[in-house]
Amino acid sequence: MGNSKQKANLNAAETKTQPPEVVVLRWGHRPLRDVRLTSHVALAARAFGARGFVLSDTVDPKIKETIEKVSISWGGSFSVEMGTPWKKAVNDWKNRGGIVVHLTAYGENIQTSSVLRQLRDAGKDVLVIVGSQKVPREFYSTEVSDFNIAVGNQPHSECAALAVFLDRFFEGKALEKTFENAKMKIIPQERGKKVA
Amino acid sequence: MGNSKQKANLNAAETKTQPPEVVVLRWGHRPLRDVRLTSHVALAARAFGARGFVLSDTVDPKIKETIEKVSISWGGSFSVEMGTPWKKAVNDWKNRGGIVVHLTAYGENIQTSSVLRQLRDAGKDVLVIVGSQKVPREFYSTEVSDFNIAVGNQPHSECAALAVFLDRFFEGKALEKTFENAKMKIIPQERGKKVA
Repeated sequence: MGNSKQKANLNAAETKTQPPEVVVLRWGHRPLRDVRLTSHVALAARAFGARGFVLSDTVDPKIKETIEKVSISWGGSFSVEMGTPWKKAVNDWKNRGGIVVHLTAYGENIQTSSVLRQLRDAGKDVLVIVGSQKVPREFYSTEVSDFNIAVGNQPHSECAALAVFLDRFFEGKALEKTFENAKMKIIPQERGKKVA
Repeated sequence: MGNSKQKANLNAAETKTQPPEVVVLRWGHRPLRDVRLTSHVALAARAFGARGFVLSDTVDPKIKETIEKVSISWGGSFSVEMGTPWKKAVNDWKNRGGIVVHLTAYGENIQTSSVLRQLRDAGKDVLVIVGSQKVPREFYSTEVSDFNIAVGNQPHSECAALAVFLDRFFEGKALEKTFENAKMKIIPQERGKKVA
């Protein structure tokens, strides 16, 4: 009995040290027009602690190239997937027991509501949908999103929203992370640039 | 004596309730190519609590139009200035007693160093310089920046960096702010869209 309790505690401790994984799904990307913005969204996803990126419903080799170049130079194992229909990505995620968050200015305010606490309490892996101005109505429904979260209820930027969402979700810890197998690494400094 | 001390305390309390003001200076904008990204930077500045935006060294009516449209609909008194040479903007700011922060992946890590605490302890108004990949070397020097701050030491996005910097600087409070004279206001909801 004592032994199994000890084991259970160990398991609980193990679970605690492994924070949930986050994957970012970008919906509504238009090749050419959105290349830079979507690249910024993907790189922010990587830098702020997501483990992967899905560009839904379309393929854009430019984006893949940009992200992979960064990952090769700066390390880590950030995954990139393209062309998956958003419905399939969402359903697969849910079937594996994951939670779906839709970032939208119309959702529950991350600062003034308890939505982030609820999400973190769930303790599950999170697929974050980052759309553009006109997402399908379904994104707001229970069939797609478990939470509609607003990083403030003002219009601004999906890239800004994603970064702040991830920063708060991971409580800032992603910014301390070391990326494995990096060829380049910045040595933070008060002045100038230093890369090892 | 007691009276003047009381007065001093009141003044201190008053100072405390007025957080420092932040203005964002965007350097290196290229008309056409950077319109969307710079718009996102400016709108993030507004939404995350800055009081104004300076597009240095260039004029782009498209940007001005986008920001002003948003301000008219969604309220507040966000200022937009264009074409000022960056050196003049920085010098004017310093002459008025303000602090200059340069956001750069090469700077001191906002998460692992004490740089944000130092900045907040200074209690002064802040000009945040948001550059692009190749900013002038001078930006890193004491003549320009009081602090070089890295929102993580990974390459990502100036828009993401700015949003997270402001979110942390204002301790999330900008997301609770009501924008005066708004024609439109989102009523946050679990599902769907509601605008008053």
